[in-house]
Amino acid sequence: MANGIERPLDMLNASKGKEILLQLKNDKQVVGTLVAFDIHINLVLDNARELENNEMKKKLGLAFVRGDTIIYISPATIK
Amino acid sequence: MANGIERPLDMLNASKGKEILLQLKNDKQVVGTLVAFDIHINLVLDNARELENNEMKKKLGLAFVRGDTIIYISPATIK
Amino acid sequence: MANGIERPLDMLNASKGKEILLQLKNDKQVVGTLVAFDIHINLVLDNARELENNEMKKKLGLAFVRGDTIIYISPATIK
Amino acid sequence: MANGIERPLDMLNASKGKEILLQLKNDKQVVGTLVAFDIHINLVLDNARELENNEMKKKLGLAFVRGDTIIYISPATIK
Amino acid sequence: MANGIERPLDMLNASKGKEILLQLKNDKQVVGTLVAFDIHINLVLDNARELENNEMKKKLGLAFVRGDTIIYISPATIK
Amino acid sequence: MANGIERPLDMLNASKGKEILLQLKNDKQVVGTLVAFDIHINLVLDNARELENNEMKKKLGLAFVRGDTIIYISPATIK
Amino acid sequence: MANGIERPLDMLNASKGKEILLQLKNDKQVVGTLVAFDIHINLVLDNARELENNEMKKKLGLAFVRGDTIIYISPATIK
Repeated sequence: MANGIERPLDMLNASKGKEILLQLKNDKQVVGTLVAFDIHINLVLDNARELENNEMKKKLGLAFVRGDTIIYISPATIK
Repeated sequence: MANGIERPLDMLNASKGKEILLQLKNDKQVVGTLVAFDIHINLVLDNARELENNEMKKKLGLAFVRGDTIIYISPATIK
Repeated sequence: MANGIERPLDMLNASKGKEILLQLKNDKQVVGTLVAFDIHINLVLDNARELENNEMKKKLGLAFVRGDTIIYISPATIK
Repeated sequence: MANGIERPLDMLNASKGKEILLQLKNDKQVVGTLVAFDIHINLVLDNARELENNEMKKKLGLAFVRGDTIIYISPATIK
Repeated sequence: MANGIERPLDMLNASKGKEILLQLKNDKQVVGTLVAFDIHINLVLDNARELENNEMKKKLGLAFVRGDTIIYISPATIK
Repeated sequence: MANGIERPLDMLNASKGKEILLQLKNDKQVVGTLVAFDIHINLVLDNARELENNEMKKKLGLAFVRGDTIIYISPATIK
Repeated sequence: MANGIERPLDMLNASKGKEILLQLKNDKQVVGTLVAFDIHINLVLDNARELENNEMKKKLGLAFVRGDTIIYISPATIK
């Protein structure tokens, strides 16, 4: 899956329409389907849910997440 | 509802006049009707209320919220 | 009161001469009459008072408040 | 005293040669006579003293204070 | 291995395709094969794993890590 | 000594070759002779020593101190 | 050794090939031979070791250290 990734944003581009997991600086996670992103790593996720200790805590629906709150972004499920 | 969102700010544009929930970095939430926003994600909300643990804590009226205090923005009610 | 607000700074412009409440990141509040602001949301308030838990703690007089210490700005009294 | 203040920096300009109080993010205060400032709100104070809980803690003499450590600036004595 | 490194980013360039360890500001580590990076030190790692106290905590797969969460980057194994 | 200081950096310029005290955000101090500075308030001090609670903790020799770690800069001895 | 240092980066330039100590904001230290640096004070050190309370904690080998995690940089041994 790393094929064709020249720059970090290429990975985000390849993740559009897929479910991703965001690890946030506040120790929580947000999972959802990537809809859009910008160079600040601000993201819009659809069907987003907030997790704590990997357990579902809250349904967010369509969510805008600020890039400066994110530690890492990975696929929601590792294949 | 994710239709037509090319960039993250498109979601905010589509949310004007609707009630949104802001999750803040200080663990509180602000709920209100989105009136205006800018590229720093500074927002103006009408009929804003501050929540703590999802309970109403304080009525704010027309509030200006600084973008750098926000973790995520989602619809106040998920439909 | 949300009429005519196209961008967030329009709300600050409409608040000049009125009493506003600043919720600060250090959990305190500052209340005073808005005299001036800039694009960094640096503000000058006249007759400013610092509050803690909504009780008056200290009279500040004419105060310059740095924008990066602010969470939200709302009318001091909601009408 | 708010007369003639169009922008926040106008207040600092009008405070040159006067004694001001800086409330810092580390919960301490610095008091001194304003000598110079720049757009980052870096300040030089003469006869500066560091206070803690409003009690004199340390004489600093001529001090350079970084703007990003400041919450608010007010007159040292309110008239 | 320090040969040919004129600027810090040269080291990241020389590390592409190799396994690196990221020490994060939150006291955790991420290990993985460097796929891509940018001038903000945003990184994409393949086969990434999150460690805590040097023990494997979670498999991340292909991960995007924000540069502003990183303290240092070193080879995963020192040769 | 405040004579001739029009802008904050003028004070740093006038302090070259003199011993200054840096109050850091981590509650420690660094004392040394100012050798050089830049607009980010990055400083080089010669014969630098780290202090904690005003007691000598560690000799640093020639030290580069990042500007964003500094709260204030004052003369090491007040005359 | 302060001779010829006009600007802070001159000290880093003069330290290339020498062993330096980095005091980090997380209270740890990194020691190693300076290989490269940039204007953000991002550094590459060879033969780097992480210290805690001045005791060796971990060998890092060739390490990239982000500038925004550094408080000060000094010679590893004071001569």
